[in-house]
Amino acid sequence: MDGQIYEELVDLRREFHKCAEVGWLEYETTIKIIHYLKLYGLEVIYGKHIHSERMGLPSERIMQEHIKNVSNLRVDFDIEEILKGYTGAVGILDTKKPGPIIALRFDIDGNAVDEDKKEEHRPYKEKFISKNKGMMHACGHDGHIAIGLSLAKNLSKQRKKLFGKILFIFQPAEEGVRGAKSLIGAGILKDVNYILSGHIGFMGKKNQVICGVDGFLATSKLDIYYYGKASHAGAYPEQGKNALLAGANCAINLHTLCQFSQGMSRINVGVLNAGTGRNVVPSYAKLEIETRGETQEINNQLLKRVYEVIEGSGKLYDVSYEVRLVGSAPAYNCKDEEFISFIENLLKECDFEVINGATMRASEDITYMFHEVEKNKGKAIYMVFGTSLSAPHHHSSFDFDEDVLLNAYMSYMKIIRYFMHQQDNIEKG
Amino acid sequence: MDGQIYEELVDLRREFHKCAEVGWLEYETTIKIIHYLKLYGLEVIYGKHIHSERMGLPSERIMQEHIKNVSNLRVDFDIEEILKGYTGAVGILDTKKPGPIIALRFDIDGNAVDEDKKEEHRPYKEKFISKNKGMMHACGHDGHIAIGLSLAKNLSKQRKKLFGKILFIFQPAEEGVRGAKSLIGAGILKDVNYILSGHIGFMGKKNQVICGVDGFLATSKLDIYYYGKASHAGAYPEQGKNALLAGANCAINLHTLCQFSQGMSRINVGVLNAGTGRNVVPSYAKLEIETRGETQEINNQLLKRVYEVIEGSGKLYDVSYEVRLVGSAPAYNCKDEEFISFIENLLKECDFEVINGATMRASEDITYMFHEVEKNKGKAIYMVFGTSLSAPHHHSSFDFDEDVLLNAYMSYMKIIRYFMHQQDNIEKG
Amino acid sequence: MDGQIYEELVDLRREFHKCAEVGWLEYETTIKIIHYLKLYGLEVIYGKHIHSERMGLPSERIMQEHIKNVSNLRVDFDIEEILKGYTGAVGILDTKKPGPIIALRFDIDGNAVDEDKKEEHRPYKEKFISKNKGMMHACGHDGHIAIGLSLAKNLSKQRKKLFGKILFIFQPAEEGVRGAKSLIGAGILKDVNYILSGHIGFMGKKNQVICGVDGFLATSKLDIYYYGKASHAGAYPEQGKNALLAGANCAINLHTLCQFSQGMSRINVGVLNAGTGRNVVPSYAKLEIETRGETQEINNQLLKRVYEVIEGSGKLYDVSYEVRLVGSAPAYNCKDEEFISFIENLLKECDFEVINGATMRASEDITYMFHEVEKNKGKAIYMVFGTSLSAPHHHSSFDFDEDVLLNAYMSYMKIIRYFMHQQDNIEKG
Amino acid sequence: MDGQIYEELVDLRREFHKCAEVGWLEYETTIKIIHYLKLYGLEVIYGKHIHSERMGLPSERIMQEHIKNVSNLRVDFDIEEILKGYTGAVGILDTKKPGPIIALRFDIDGNAVDEDKKEEHRPYKEKFISKNKGMMHACGHDGHIAIGLSLAKNLSKQRKKLFGKILFIFQPAEEGVRGAKSLIGAGILKDVNYILSGHIGFMGKKNQVICGVDGFLATSKLDIYYYGKASHAGAYPEQGKNALLAGANCAINLHTLCQFSQGMSRINVGVLNAGTGRNVVPSYAKLEIETRGETQEINNQLLKRVYEVIEGSGKLYDVSYEVRLVGSAPAYNCKDEEFISFIENLLKECDFEVINGATMRASEDITYMFHEVEKNKGKAIYMVFGTSLSAPHHHSSFDFDEDVLLNAYMSYMKIIRYFMHQQDNIEKG
Repeated sequence: MDGQIYEELVDLRREFHKCAEVGWLEYETTIKIIHYLKLYGLEVIYGKHIHSERMGLPSERIMQEHIKNVSNLRVDFDIEEILKGYTGAVGILDTKKPGPIIALRFDIDGNAVDEDKKEEHRPYKEKFISKNKGMMHACGHDGHIAIGLSLAKNLSKQRKKLFGKILFIFQPAEEGVRGAKSLIGAGILKDVNYILSGHIGFMGKKNQVICGVDGFLATSKLDIYYYGKASHAGAYPEQGKNALLAGANCAINLHTLCQFSQGMSRINVGVLNAGTGRNVVPSYAKLEIETRGETQEINNQLLKRVYEVIEGSGKLYDVSYEVRLVGSAPAYNCKDEEFISFIENLLKECDFEVINGATMRASEDITYMFHEVEKNKGKAIYMVFGTSLSAPHHHSSFDFDEDVLLNAYMSYMKIIRYFMHQQDNIEKG
Repeated sequence: MDGQIYEELVDLRREFHKCAEVGWLEYETTIKIIHYLKLYGLEVIYGKHIHSERMGLPSERIMQEHIKNVSNLRVDFDIEEILKGYTGAVGILDTKKPGPIIALRFDIDGNAVDEDKKEEHRPYKEKFISKNKGMMHACGHDGHIAIGLSLAKNLSKQRKKLFGKILFIFQPAEEGVRGAKSLIGAGILKDVNYILSGHIGFMGKKNQVICGVDGFLATSKLDIYYYGKASHAGAYPEQGKNALLAGANCAINLHTLCQFSQGMSRINVGVLNAGTGRNVVPSYAKLEIETRGETQEINNQLLKRVYEVIEGSGKLYDVSYEVRLVGSAPAYNCKDEEFISFIENLLKECDFEVINGATMRASEDITYMFHEVEKNKGKAIYMVFGTSLSAPHHHSSFDFDEDVLLNAYMSYMKIIRYFMHQQDNIEKG
Repeated sequence: MDGQIYEELVDLRREFHKCAEVGWLEYETTIKIIHYLKLYGLEVIYGKHIHSERMGLPSERIMQEHIKNVSNLRVDFDIEEILKGYTGAVGILDTKKPGPIIALRFDIDGNAVDEDKKEEHRPYKEKFISKNKGMMHACGHDGHIAIGLSLAKNLSKQRKKLFGKILFIFQPAEEGVRGAKSLIGAGILKDVNYILSGHIGFMGKKNQVICGVDGFLATSKLDIYYYGKASHAGAYPEQGKNALLAGANCAINLHTLCQFSQGMSRINVGVLNAGTGRNVVPSYAKLEIETRGETQEINNQLLKRVYEVIEGSGKLYDVSYEVRLVGSAPAYNCKDEEFISFIENLLKECDFEVINGATMRASEDITYMFHEVEKNKGKAIYMVFGTSLSAPHHHSSFDFDEDVLLNAYMSYMKIIRYFMHQQDNIEKG
Repeated sequence: MDGQIYEELVDLRREFHKCAEVGWLEYETTIKIIHYLKLYGLEVIYGKHIHSERMGLPSERIMQEHIKNVSNLRVDFDIEEILKGYTGAVGILDTKKPGPIIALRFDIDGNAVDEDKKEEHRPYKEKFISKNKGMMHACGHDGHIAIGLSLAKNLSKQRKKLFGKILFIFQPAEEGVRGAKSLIGAGILKDVNYILSGHIGFMGKKNQVICGVDGFLATSKLDIYYYGKASHAGAYPEQGKNALLAGANCAINLHTLCQFSQGMSRINVGVLNAGTGRNVVPSYAKLEIETRGETQEINNQLLKRVYEVIEGSGKLYDVSYEVRLVGSAPAYNCKDEEFISFIENLLKECDFEVINGATMRASEDITYMFHEVEKNKGKAIYMVFGTSLSAPHHHSSFDFDEDVLLNAYMSYMKIIRYFMHQQDNIEKG
């Protein structure tokens, strides 16, 4: 039985690896997910119905152009909204019997990375590398999709024995922490009692499952635009308004902001592009930045200072500016020790090694969902599924040992079965 | 007769307008010029033979790719070097009789501008707009080529009546002041007695010719590269070396340098591109800058300070750097008043209005050639041929009143005939 | 006769050299000037009566403390306002007969320089060095006072032969271009037909008088204060508001502003003092800056940018700021060639060499007075009295050849006599 | 008995409060300490004998001038070296019997603060405020001296019952972390088995003693000097070399350095003074800065970057620079838990409440001494003696509840007696 599931997981993972698509462009990925969920007998909601405000959308032009890359658009459901960037889907397995509502969250986007074409890179050698140029599953989300779909298929078969309801949330645009907030705004987490999520790799070793990860950093991703006025730099320098110098000044001064007594903070101006020509006073600058804080409070204090530096730098050179929030996620430090221990004990019945907790020191927008569920007295858990990697996450030759897929599948299955096996389990945990 | 020449000028101008090519990519332009010069019976030298060190070359990839844009490559002369960026050509009309050596310089490159496709734009309406995307003759160099070729054709017909030798220099890469120095280094101005050049537009009105322009600014064009070290900005900020901040600091501090007691100076950081991703410590920055000085001395002093700011900014962030000189031209303020007056009187016999002198306040690499010729006791003159424009130079809807072509042709012809009509004229002027 | 005047000039110059006082602290200097003017039989106005708004006043404490340095306060006129910084005086010689109103302006302040105590320094050797620590006549204003008083004395004696009225304006606080505007605001130049002023040294050689100097630069002197919030830099860095970094950022960016197509501009942040202790987030910064422009328009454009940089830098670090205009003078480029020639011819009758015109390339607040008088159709002239110097102006061992005093005296006398000798001379010139 | 010691402690504290002297100027303080130690029968070493390299000395002039403030210089021992800043003293109580060597360290310097003269301020009301202008015991070191001297007096009386040797180290210049290193360099801690130190206030409440404080931050204090070249900012701006802009650039960029993955870091440019006059290109700048790190490694990495920023900023403006290390202390995080517990149990026999451990989050140069003793297998402990304060440390109205003096005295006495009561106690602890 496990062998069959393993094969299924590997096949799905590779199928989705091939059509890697970056955040908000998961057109084909979403269409395929919906196709399978329907095939397995689940109700599926998608499109505008599951979105509120989407952060960090690509440009209209890029969204249009990607449509050309999408295959097999002949499906028996409406995909118009998906092709406008309303990606992702939620599969609902409703037993129609009283019981807990459990949400499982799987992120589905790839990375803006050109996949390696070397024999040593297994996806290349075994012919499942990404067909989309400049897009690659380099963070294991292809595996997450496979786990989610396999669970949907097999739990659907067992629905008669189960109580309550399961939501299979396939979230777009996790990279850049953009997608979660839009889904929550659409109300998909209403009344959820338990939310489970996890990640392949990052921490742990092969055959380990880390149970109850926290220490997620609060983060904000901003795009800053300065708009000045061009003029001939030799003939009329005083007629220009220099957006490049505003941007440069902004970059340097932003980097002075990271001293907080209450904990760690981070800032990075990762990209600065400014100016149009050597002999023209630069009329344009764009900065891509991010902030992080060990707590929400630190990130908020930092952001307040960031906005002052942006405004002041614009004032310095008499240029206007615009700031766009293109991603964000709250900190998550407050795990429920008792619940974690309960789950840990459940998982110890499995074949892999269970590790209690770990600190992430990175950002993930699952934290939005965890806070939403906990606000309504629900419970949350994040697991990391240890594996061995061929290269670090986000690297062009990233790949993972596919054995991890089965461990992850088993972890979710164990927990879900416990809570849904009988109605009264809702009180436990 | 003039009517026929006018038609010839217009035809040639439009032919070259269609195949506008930017500096060092004037493949088709050069091939056509050589073709015509040979047709007119001139000796032609070109390729490596007329170049020494070329500044501001495009990348190998761009040079390769442009070959696809070139039509009619089937010619009966060797074009291999031309297709490697050894563009431009020198046509030699040698009377084999003793007499002066006169050099005429015509610049041949277009601008990195997408030409306008509106009915109001005559080149579009009359179907001679540039076929090359992102390249356009927006500075009138297509007119300069036409004037040069017409002069070559008609002077060649008269060669029996003439004394001495004429060099028709078709210079590549004037934009960015890159091409002149390479030609001089190859020795093409050896023994030249007179050098004439000029420009359509910039100053003056329709039917005016300004005789004896000076006040050209010294200028240097530099590309600055900073190379740092990437690292994850959240997890390991201290492991990165921040090239973006080095570049930003360089940009701001360069702009503090323009106070000189001896005259005007200019600096512009026109373009700054840095960084690879929002959450990565930026490992790369590129700045495109230019300096200018009212005198060579000021530009030299300024450049000394520029190099200190570049080095210091690299040191600040422990990043390495590279500076490439991609263009330069000396100042030219020292015109020969006596010679100018002589030419002015000559031109007054023509149909147009003659204006004595003007100050350019811009840069042109003809100044390299003027200094070279004057160093050897030769004489130099720069004319501006007034016209009416549809839009400023370098604008996507730039166009000029083609009547100016005939005035320019006549100006050159008048001067050349005077000096070459008889051997002893070499002493005059 | 000249010998006697020369001795008088030297005695007066040395007397005032001894009690050198810096701008707005010319207490003893003013009291002595009033004493002499009254002695010579002139009407004298002074105190608040001759002032409007004074720029760049010293602090209350410094003004109080300087009173201790003043000798001989027992005079028969009211000095209370003088001791509050309403320094300077205007002596009026009114012939009560119709005729021109001529204003002569002499600046009276010393410099903030400790005078040299070496045998080679004549004022030390001959025992007339400044008694006031940190204050010295290092710009020749002691000589200007002497010239003004001698003229007053001797013209007063001749009053019966003269027509019209003479104003002897002894202006305080010329250094830092602070005093002139305050006097004008009080209306002392009302109805003036001619204004004469001049300076010892700077240009010209011994025994030369330069007649008709212009090219004075427009200038503004600003003090900038940033007020932040202190906090312990180790324990609570985020609770501070960093005025030092605001000031530093302001300084650097101000220096980027000097590129104007219409002419020369200058900026200098001459002094920056910030912070209170090594381990405290700095809550305070003060910058002393100046701007200059070849024209008023350039200085105005520059000032607009200066204020933007000040505001933006404050915004960057969330600190408040204050700007105080502590000095200013307009440009003066528009001399009346005809009038200058007329005066030049007059002076040629004297013993010294007369030079026609020169360009100052510095700032002097006499330009306020010149514009005021010319606005009312009056005429203005500035002379430089050439001499030999022992050290440059403002140097601690500055001294001049006292022969220059007589040339200056003669120049003024020659002009005044011409215009006041008979009523109708007012139409001439 | 305790009542008598309490009175003694209070008297001594107030005596030393009156003659507060800042670091390296503790002339009178040192002389008095030596006087008492000798009186109590201890051997005393002082002057150059106990110093190696002193960091952060005041200027020669300030050191000379302070001599005037010193009273009662007629003592029967040589004070010449003390008056040159070789301050502090070490009293040695040698039982001449085998036993442990225990070092007690008391810091003796005051703060650069003007003491409050208000009735509410007890030292003013009760007439023991500092007689030295601008110097005040605002950190409780007067109390530390009193504790040290009382212990010396009373232990000296008991010497017959004791074994081993006690060093009473009265350390100068703890403020600015300057003095400890110099004493260690002179070898005074050779063979020490136990070192005890502590501080009044900072943490804890009245009647609490915190036993085993660590978490001291590594710190470095630097003075940075930039030397440029002055020139007239209006006339010859390009002839100057701008030290102010170098300093400003240094300040801003230093503040970008505080992002380290391994822990907390701090930087502060606390003071920046630059320039000599508004119209002079600034030839001089001085920055007073400090760095801190949670570990030595972080502070070292930060310092490496600091030096690069200093050098780069000098290079930017072609000015030379000098850096002086004027204070430093290592981190101390590695307390000996077992030893701390042992001492804690000892102290629990006393009247006050004992608290186990606390984290300092500040810097103290006792850490140099702790590392030195531990390097030689000795043991170290730092105590904080809780009290109530009238104002925060370093405030002009700082004062403490003098009851704390007895608790501190008792703590030291308890520990010392345990270890010195019998020879073999050296093995314990």
